[in-house]
Amino acid sequence: MFAPSDLTEDGFLGGRLRISQPKAGYRSAMDAVFLAAACDARPGQSVLELGCGAGVASLCLGARVPGLAQIGLEVQPRYAALAQANAQSNGVALDVVQGDLAQMPSELRACSFDHVIANPPYFPPDSGTAAADLERERANREQTPLAEWIDAGLRRLKPSGWITVIQQADRLGDVLAGLQGRAGAITVLPIAARVGRPAGRVIVQARKGARAPLVLLAPLIVHAGPHHTRDAEDFSEIAHAILRNGQKLLIQR
Amino acid sequence: MFAPSDLTEDGFLGGRLRISQPKAGYRSAMDAVFLAAACDARPGQSVLELGCGAGVASLCLGARVPGLAQIGLEVQPRYAALAQANAQSNGVALDVVQGDLAQMPSELRACSFDHVIANPPYFPPDSGTAAADLERERANREQTPLAEWIDAGLRRLKPSGWITVIQQADRLGDVLAGLQGRAGAITVLPIAARVGRPAGRVIVQARKGARAPLVLLAPLIVHAGPHHTRDAEDFSEIAHAILRNGQKLLIQR
Repeated sequence: MFAPSDLTEDGFLGGRLRISQPKAGYRSAMDAVFLAAACDARPGQSVLELGCGAGVASLCLGARVPGLAQIGLEVQPRYAALAQANAQSNGVALDVVQGDLAQMPSELRACSFDHVIANPPYFPPDSGTAAADLERERANREQTPLAEWIDAGLRRLKPSGWITVIQQADRLGDVLAGLQGRAGAITVLPIAARVGRPAGRVIVQARKGARAPLVLLAPLIVHAGPHHTRDAEDFSEIAHAILRNGQKLLIQR
Repeated sequence: MFAPSDLTEDGFLGGRLRISQPKAGYRSAMDAVFLAAACDARPGQSVLELGCGAGVASLCLGARVPGLAQIGLEVQPRYAALAQANAQSNGVALDVVQGDLAQMPSELRACSFDHVIANPPYFPPDSGTAAADLERERANREQTPLAEWIDAGLRRLKPSGWITVIQQADRLGDVLAGLQGRAGAITVLPIAARVGRPAGRVIVQARKGARAPLVLLAPLIVHAGPHHTRDAEDFSEIAHAILRNGQKLLIQR
């Protein structure tokens, strides 16, 4: 377990969630919230999050949609325990399973879900400098290839179930390659810091076994104005609605 | 040859080019002009266009950049002849080769180019209703799979040469799959009719053998304003600069 002194408690969705995260480890920010906002789960449906970390995405989703059956899979024991504790302290029903998606735990192999969500590590194994914190390194850097994340997600989906992934925009080709021939109705939502900028992230959503064509949406713009001008938040209207008010992200096709 | 009465003469780049196209056949519009605008060819370089049709993209490129060595490959004999005639009447040096990219003519197999450009057919073989005009049908509907277009283009490139393709946005995954492992520094430019709309087209540009990461740019918006309000042109500033003034499209990475 993390020592309490190694943790901070951070507010999400305008303070509706209070989530403990390790000071020096992997810390979720807006990506996990956008991921949750993009998942169109309905009350009564089942959701699996691959690599749930401290649980931010699953807890945001559970805070928005009542009555979900949610499971979070997390390979790192201390994060799995933290996610379970965060779920409890926030009163969200989330079962956290500690295990490796590359060797899917047997209790999950028999299960299939209406939705799978994932925020896989952004950095390929051979890129950049390793983080000093080993758990943070594991959360940031791909050990299990991205293709395996998508494969694991598709396997755990019911027929016609939806997978939703957030990734660095430069991995878009890898995400689409992983879906090729196995899922359709793919929607790509670019997320850009400001109007006119290249996308920093993409949300890719697809339906298992579907054949409908891909749609490339207009980008979601995170910050208002052409550049950062003040210390106060300068979120765009839509980013504010999602990040502070827990609004659902309408991914129209 | 097309009978003169079967042709119309259309202005491109604000009338700088006058290009004959068949009334009932495949007619280039803004896509070919955007394609030409996206190709960063420099004077003295060589360019191959796969499937040049009546020659619009190659002629727009030749009108912008002097001193290029340009070849257009076109499978349909009447279009190949028309492209050659259009090049001549507009004073642009373009050699048109009649042949099938799926069985690359021997005179091109020995050649390699600094740039390859292509506007492949948008519709998969099994989709929609066939056009009554057989030549138009061939220009619109994929007979040679999109993957073969990209493969043929990559084969004809010099090392570190650039391929630039315009396609329907829903084929983005197919285009990226064709480039996978063989080209990098991929830039995806979505083209949307208006702000906030999904992309209708994508321009994908990539460098043979490169390894730089993919960049997903902010969309190019074609029309100003939220919807069509008048019969007059309502092009955005950038679309007007490209379509009417022949300006280069800056694809910044």
